Amino acid sequence: MAKVKPSIPKGTRDFAPATMVKREYIFDTIKKVFKKYGFQPLETPSMENISTLTGKYGEEGDKLLFRILNSGDYLSKATEDDLLSRDLKVLTPKISNKGLRYDLTVPFARFVVQHRGEITFPFKRYQIQPVWRADKPQKGRYREFYQCDVDVIGSDSLINEVELIKIIDEVFTALNLKVTIKINNRKVLKGLADYLESSDKFTDITIAVDKLDKIGIEGVKEDLKKRGINESAVEKIDSFLRLEDNNLSETKKSLQEIFSGIPAGEKGIEETEEIFNFLESVELKNEVEFDPKLARGLDYYTGTIFEVKAREIEIGSICGGGRYDDLTGVFGLNDVSGVGISFGAERIFDVMEKLDKFPEGMQSLSKILFVNFGKEEVKHTLKYIQVLRDNDIPAVLYPDTAKMKKQFSYADNLNIKYVAIVGQDEIKNDRITLKNMETGEQSNLTLDELINKLSY
Amino acid sequence: MAKVKPSIPKGTRDFAPATMVKREYIFDTIKKVFKKYGFQPLETPSMENISTLTGKYGEEGDKLLFRILNSGDYLSKATEDDLLSRDLKVLTPKISNKGLRYDLTVPFARFVVQHRGEITFPFKRYQIQPVWRADKPQKGRYREFYQCDVDVIGSDSLINEVELIKIIDEVFTALNLKVTIKINNRKVLKGLADYLESSDKFTDITIAVDKLDKIGIEGVKEDLKKRGINESAVEKIDSFLRLEDNNLSETKKSLQEIFSGIPAGEKGIEETEEIFNFLESVELKNEVEFDPKLARGLDYYTGTIFEVKAREIEIGSICGGGRYDDLTGVFGLNDVSGVGISFGAERIFDVMEKLDKFPEGMQSLSKILFVNFGKEEVKHTLKYIQVLRDNDIPAVLYPDTAKMKKQFSYADNLNIKYVAIVGQDEIKNDRITLKNMETGEQSNLTLDELINKLSY
Repeated sequence: MAKVKPSIPKGTRDFAPATMVKREYIFDTIKKVFKKYGFQPLETPSMENISTLTGKYGEEGDKLLFRILNSGDYLSKATEDDLLSRDLKVLTPKISNKGLRYDLTVPFARFVVQHRGEITFPFKRYQIQPVWRADKPQKGRYREFYQCDVDVIGSDSLINEVELIKIIDEVFTALNLKVTIKINNRKVLKGLADYLESSDKFTDITIAVDKLDKIGIEGVKEDLKKRGINESAVEKIDSFLRLEDNNLSETKKSLQEIFSGIPAGEKGIEETEEIFNFLESVELKNEVEFDPKLARGLDYYTGTIFEVKAREIEIGSICGGGRYDDLTGVFGLNDVSGVGISFGAERIFDVMEKLDKFPEGMQSLSKILFVNFGKEEVKHTLKYIQVLRDNDIPAVLYPDTAKMKKQFSYADNLNIKYVAIVGQDEIKNDRITLKNMETGEQSNLTLDELINKLSY
Repeated sequence: MAKVKPSIPKGTRDFAPATMVKREYIFDTIKKVFKKYGFQPLETPSMENISTLTGKYGEEGDKLLFRILNSGDYLSKATEDDLLSRDLKVLTPKISNKGLRYDLTVPFARFVVQHRGEITFPFKRYQIQPVWRADKPQKGRYREFYQCDVDVIGSDSLINEVELIKIIDEVFTALNLKVTIKINNRKVLKGLADYLESSDKFTDITIAVDKLDKIGIEGVKEDLKKRGINESAVEKIDSFLRLEDNNLSETKKSLQEIFSGIPAGEKGIEETEEIFNFLESVELKNEVEFDPKLARGLDYYTGTIFEVKAREIEIGSICGGGRYDDLTGVFGLNDVSGVGISFGAERIFDVMEKLDKFPEGMQSLSKILFVNFGKEEVKHTLKYIQVLRDNDIPAVLYPDTAKMKKQFSYADNLNIKYVAIVGQDEIKNDRITLKNMETGEQSNLTLDELINKLSY
């Protein structure tokens, strides 16, 4: 076998233990909250039939799908003409019928339709799995990354929105991050399109408004013009784009003026108001703001939309989602309303890293290292160590009879706080010599005393 | 968008909540033991550069790799001749440079070599991730399945073997499965080859002996003959194959006779004896057997090998592994000894399912469902439910104002034991009516009483 200089594909990552521990902390915290709210875990395969994936993420999305080469003689269905034409649109479907999932939403919709006979609705599921996108790798953008989704499907009650807001609040509180939860309703944007007498341009208007933060009011207006919205409509949108988003009753009043006699807009305000009304009954640690200019890029949302921003750092959205009325329609199941959010675990990790929010002591996976003095001593040590482990205290025995210095620096490198010495003296007296690696303090303990010391 | 009848690729699976909960139970149990023994989590990317994977699993293995089509114009490097020749050996490397990982061992070796400067050795890691193989799907064999590996690399101490045996014992005890842990040493098989004066046929002998359980003693002898081992050697192997594997001292005695003056064989016995010697200092719930005929298929093992069988059911091996002296050699790092085992999570799941070993009450993810009577009542209910969740009691509110019957049958379907009713009467008296869905028993409680009842 040839020697290969080892590396990994660009845009992918190894997660070494120190990083893994932090990632697991985030996922475990999120999962714990999901479970408390009665959400159930789901996993779908990494590969989906390509027909499940294509056409769901727009033309750009199709290009970003990772496709899997068929097994065996993958050229068997390709004719000479197919090959020589080099027309990928013709050739690709003949040599590849599977792709890696691009998100968790489409596989979830596929699952719901495929298993609709076995599912009890409303179906509350969460799903934490990697997804793959053949995006150009760059800082903070990966070709393999985890998504962390939670959805209720089969219920149009706004209580679900309220519960999701509670979940957002609880997750970020548990992670010790301060956030602002922005909400809006796609019906407000629909109302806006109707108000501008450009109902047919709803999607264009949504996409343009979505850019407001990046390109400003004048930028949005330019963009709208490019998208064929007429001058007078573009001028009418000005007052909407200037709406403040931090005062619910003011915002509502201004919106009601704009939307008077526009059913979609009125409905959007009404739904949002009902959510705030329910929120009065629950306790929140973070602020919820109604921001009528919030748009969210993805186009399957039809009701409430959510976006969460960290307050302590400028980094874009770290959680978002919304209500959809026809996610499963493409797989043949119509009129099933659902609502869900997705936690941006990768970005949350970056925020926590930058703000130094991971709890202390996370680096040390074991509490104690036992020095290895040789076979005879090890036999005693094995007994002690077992009692510690039986008491749920993670403990390590240095496997080799190496120099003391080497064994101590092993503990140091792994951030293990205590080193235990069980030599002939200790065996004779049935005691353990313990060194605190942080303070240098040394003590001589019975096994019971040691257990007490480490069981905090 | 066209309607697509939803399905998933053959050999892959959706894991619905009821299955997920059981799978997570297995993984969490295993992880908890790994951590107690000081092993650290690692994750590697799903995709590896194809050069990392090819040539590591034999010719058959190469065929079973899932390859990923390059992004963009994947034909750009293929000449007209490449295409028309239909020679996949030439074409494939030009259109695909990544593959899905086939196991966790090769990516682990790649990681160790790539990051050797940052790793503190001995490196104790565990890794629980899916792997992909383009195998013919059949009962119990999937194209995507989880592996669950634990390894120590950078230490040749037999203490590591002892700790792995302890881990096996503890994991299966925690899972409530009775097992037999068989061990052998590849040096015993090496000794056998030397004894048969067929040292150059070591691999053939190993492969043949590995089939003993399936094809019997005569079958192995036939196989050896086919592999070009001469008659006299085949006759000499007979007494070896007839060795009993349940009496250590007897087995040792017979082996010592065979191996007198054969260094490899003697070393194999010596190492095994040392492991048993250490094992006397630890407590085991399951039996460890020395089985000199245990071979294990994979060819990178060089020392101790392990295999675990369930005692309550006939199903093949549910955990196995061994020591390797040159796993990282192929990536340019020589002479690093390691030892590891892999838990067959999928098979363990099947065993536990068949033997009904999953703990009771696992099906119900929530303890209590609150009935939805309408907006006004829900405002009160939301407050109660929050207090329960703050006490770590998973609780669900039915989101819609549906008929009572529908809401009760929802609780029934999800195996939720208690249904809580908060109507106008209850609100007036600040009490909750509770129905036990198993017994039909009904009670009227304060919130504190309810918390006490559910906090077990």
